[in-house]
Amino acid sequence: MKVSTSKDNNLKTASLFIERAKLSEAEIIVLPEMFNTPYTKSHMINYAEEGQGKAYKFLKENSKGIILIGGSIPEKDGENIYNTTFAFENGIEIGKYRKINLFDVDYDKICFQESGFITPGENTTVIKTSLGKIGLAICFDLRFPDLFQKMEEENPFLYIVPAAFNNVSGPAHYKLLARSRGLDTQSFIALCSPASDLNAEYCPYGHSLITDPWGNVLSEMDETEGIVLQNIDKEYVNQIRCELPIKKKLIK
Amino acid sequence: MKVSTSKDNNLKTASLFIERAKLSEAEIIVLPEMFNTPYTKSHMINYAEEGQGKAYKFLKENSKGIILIGGSIPEKDGENIYNTTFAFENGIEIGKYRKINLFDVDYDKICFQESGFITPGENTTVIKTSLGKIGLAICFDLRFPDLFQKMEEENPFLYIVPAAFNNVSGPAHYKLLARSRGLDTQSFIALCSPASDLNAEYCPYGHSLITDPWGNVLSEMDETEGIVLQNIDKEYVNQIRCELPIKKKLIK
Repeated sequence: MKVSTSKDNNLKTASLFIERAKLSEAEIIVLPEMFNTPYTKSHMINYAEEGQGKAYKFLKENSKGIILIGGSIPEKDGENIYNTTFAFENGIEIGKYRKINLFDVDYDKICFQESGFITPGENTTVIKTSLGKIGLAICFDLRFPDLFQKMEEENPFLYIVPAAFNNVSGPAHYKLLARSRGLDTQSFIALCSPASDLNAEYCPYGHSLITDPWGNVLSEMDETEGIVLQNIDKEYVNQIRCELPIKKKLIK
Repeated sequence: MKVSTSKDNNLKTASLFIERAKLSEAEIIVLPEMFNTPYTKSHMINYAEEGQGKAYKFLKENSKGIILIGGSIPEKDGENIYNTTFAFENGIEIGKYRKINLFDVDYDKICFQESGFITPGENTTVIKTSLGKIGLAICFDLRFPDLFQKMEEENPFLYIVPAAFNNVSGPAHYKLLARSRGLDTQSFIALCSPASDLNAEYCPYGHSLITDPWGNVLSEMDETEGIVLQNIDKEYVNQIRCELPIKKKLIK
């Protein structure tokens, strides 16, 4: 989805995509990083919500009958703001993850210091769902293999990573990082990005995609709005871990 | 280089390539994994040499005036055989690395159990050269980010990885792993493979290549014999680590 400057419109857009995905019988639905706010300092600060705010309730409501990984939203906790993924299954919160590795870069036309206003999380999160264990990470976290190694202790079959790359890091690293984290962990990886918006202050790369435990891309979007719909064969995780053993446990 | 079944011929071929690279003013020269023996159990056992054998002396001799990373050779130590990289600078041994993660796979037409006759090494190796620190790994090691994380403590600017992938794992993972280890460590990565040989019992993938700290491929071979000659700008390591800071120390 394309993220607008209106928080309410963003929730409305998200609900339309969730409905469309449900009609396609999706069982796990993933929204993009910062799906309810433009990726700018001022918007993230202004749109942050304490506790169970509007976006939280929206996600809870919309998770009826499915697993919903709510992209991420700015979450207020006292003085701090976090970049947080909330996960729900059938109306119940089943976990949340606060982005640990914040996006601080200064390269070729893009300078951004997320750590200037976002507080880093402290704990990795692997959620238990009715379909199996899923590791959660956000965007810049993809650059840290040790974060995934920590999550591997709980042995998820799938990592879901809301990720708003940009038009420098996107073409260079987005697919490479998805494939390499998938190959390293011999798991599925799903990246979900806001659609490109050349008028936005920060233009996301788009290109949501899903990779498999052999490092192949299964499906991908271009930079526009849309849905990546992909069947996942959990048993393929174990097949690859048997054929190419690199010290991974089998999933149950 | 193409590896033949004659150990002596392989040393001869290697010396010709080393001479050619020296004429191009190469300062660091890298040979392929198991450059003196076909990649088969029987050859590796038969061609293994104790202590300072023929291949060792050959490498030492040929390292005059350069840094020579001697691909790897089967190294005998008492009852054990290791898959070992010896490194020399100007006639002096400056380090050796025994492959830790052995090649045990059973997939699509290729089944190989290196651990059936090779003993795994126990220690990572980062060598100090007159041009800077270089981390050493071999082939299957590329699949283990934690091995590179351990070497990162000594902060090399370059990792050299003799690597005889095959025609299944090669097209699927060879370049992906080089680029991802380079991006994860924000360092240069050089992979050196024997040339393809469709008549060999184990046909190497070829495609020796060098990647940079941004994850780009700088130069690569096809599957035939040849030399990848590449200038490396060490300062580019620090540039990337400043522009895209992911907790790496700067190199000196």
